[in-house]
Amino acid sequence: MKNILTIILGFCTAFAVANVDPQPGPKPKNIGIALFRAWQPMDVFGVFEALWELGLLTPINVYLIDADGSAAMVKPFNPFATGSNTTATVLADYSFDNAPPLDVWIVGGGIGTRDNATMAPVIEFTKKVYPSLQYMISVCTGASVLARAGILDGKRATTNKNAWAFVTQFGQRIRWQPHMRYVRDGNVWTTSGVSAGVDGILGWIEYVWGTNVSTTVTNAMEWYHSGANDDIFGTLHGL
Amino acid sequence: MKNILTIILGFCTAFAVANVDPQPGPKPKNIGIALFRAWQPMDVFGVFEALWELGLLTPINVYLIDADGSAAMVKPFNPFATGSNTTATVLADYSFDNAPPLDVWIVGGGIGTRDNATMAPVIEFTKKVYPSLQYMISVCTGASVLARAGILDGKRATTNKNAWAFVTQFGQRIRWQPHMRYVRDGNVWTTSGVSAGVDGILGWIEYVWGTNVSTTVTNAMEWYHSGANDDIFGTLHGL
Repeated sequence: MKNILTIILGFCTAFAVANVDPQPGPKPKNIGIALFRAWQPMDVFGVFEALWELGLLTPINVYLIDADGSAAMVKPFNPFATGSNTTATVLADYSFDNAPPLDVWIVGGGIGTRDNATMAPVIEFTKKVYPSLQYMISVCTGASVLARAGILDGKRATTNKNAWAFVTQFGQRIRWQPHMRYVRDGNVWTTSGVSAGVDGILGWIEYVWGTNVSTTVTNAMEWYHSGANDDIFGTLHGL
Repeated sequence: MKNILTIILGFCTAFAVANVDPQPGPKPKNIGIALFRAWQPMDVFGVFEALWELGLLTPINVYLIDADGSAAMVKPFNPFATGSNTTATVLADYSFDNAPPLDVWIVGGGIGTRDNATMAPVIEFTKKVYPSLQYMISVCTGASVLARAGILDGKRATTNKNAWAFVTQFGQRIRWQPHMRYVRDGNVWTTSGVSAGVDGILGWIEYVWGTNVSTTVTNAMEWYHSGANDDIFGTLHGL
């Protein structure tokens, strides 16, 4: 069983998404990632990892940006019922007020997306910056920020399969896709939960820079890439 | 092709690693993760994500620990040839001098592992703390720290497939496994590069807490789990 899986995965990793040429025109260079209280660790750093590898191949700048340019914690608003302590504190490079011009804006998810006061400045900044972006990307429940900013109205989109009811309450006429790993609609990319963000950003890297670049990034991360349609979690989480 | 892959992956995720019972005896609770200059983003935060999800189910504490208890940056020692700027700064919770008692010590990799001065205190702390640990875990080139600390001597182990020559120069009579995703030998778990750390920690969670817990964590992360033997990257990287 595992040998068959290894062979098929190897084949898919090597060939399934072959032959995508880079997009014509200027490539995006300045990429911002949102931080806020109770952000989800891999939503941010899975994407960050792929961009770090991309940065070895092509010139980009990656900025962590939050409301006040200080420190953003993984720590939730209320203690876990288990009593666990699993916090991490990351320093932002810029605040929403002094952020540099961005070509790409990425919003991840986490428990913080459930807190309106926490998300208000993130939604406001997202709404303000979107018209000047080349690409807008969300991971996980970060899609709720795009929906609340009106960016997904009328578009196809996806989000965390285990937080479906929460996110899909927002926005107007959004065509939510419960069985997609990630979705592109125009210049907006939305991904499913947590690790799906890495597959989405790899799909986006392939779309922008072509297959040779995305394959190099994928293999450097030793990542088994799942494509836009490769989703089992919609079904596993009852959608 | 993708439909077949989805079905097989779904089958493997749901059933391939079923029926592992939890380990008897007291469960590990206090888990430290090493930080140092030029750590690899997902080596730390992929593992952190799985532990964060685990913390929702069972009481654990996760501590980020570095040499001086201050801030540790992703930033490399030398600028990238591309001119890219992809830095991130994370605050440590403790230093090696004031670290709390640990049941588990996790060392990730990154460019920093190539710098002897940076790694000297990490190697020293790892050597000191190992005898009192329940479990020792490395991700990626973090295996070089365990090898330099003498912990892998005579053991089976693996590491990043794209940094194989660098890591395998260290240690004595280590039985390096070039085609494994992750390896357990006694209480020491070593994983292959970057994202393999997540598969390794999920394998470890299953070993310690059983399949029910590890499946919940895996599905919450929307992670396609690859088992210890599911490796294609040794071959892809010419091993």
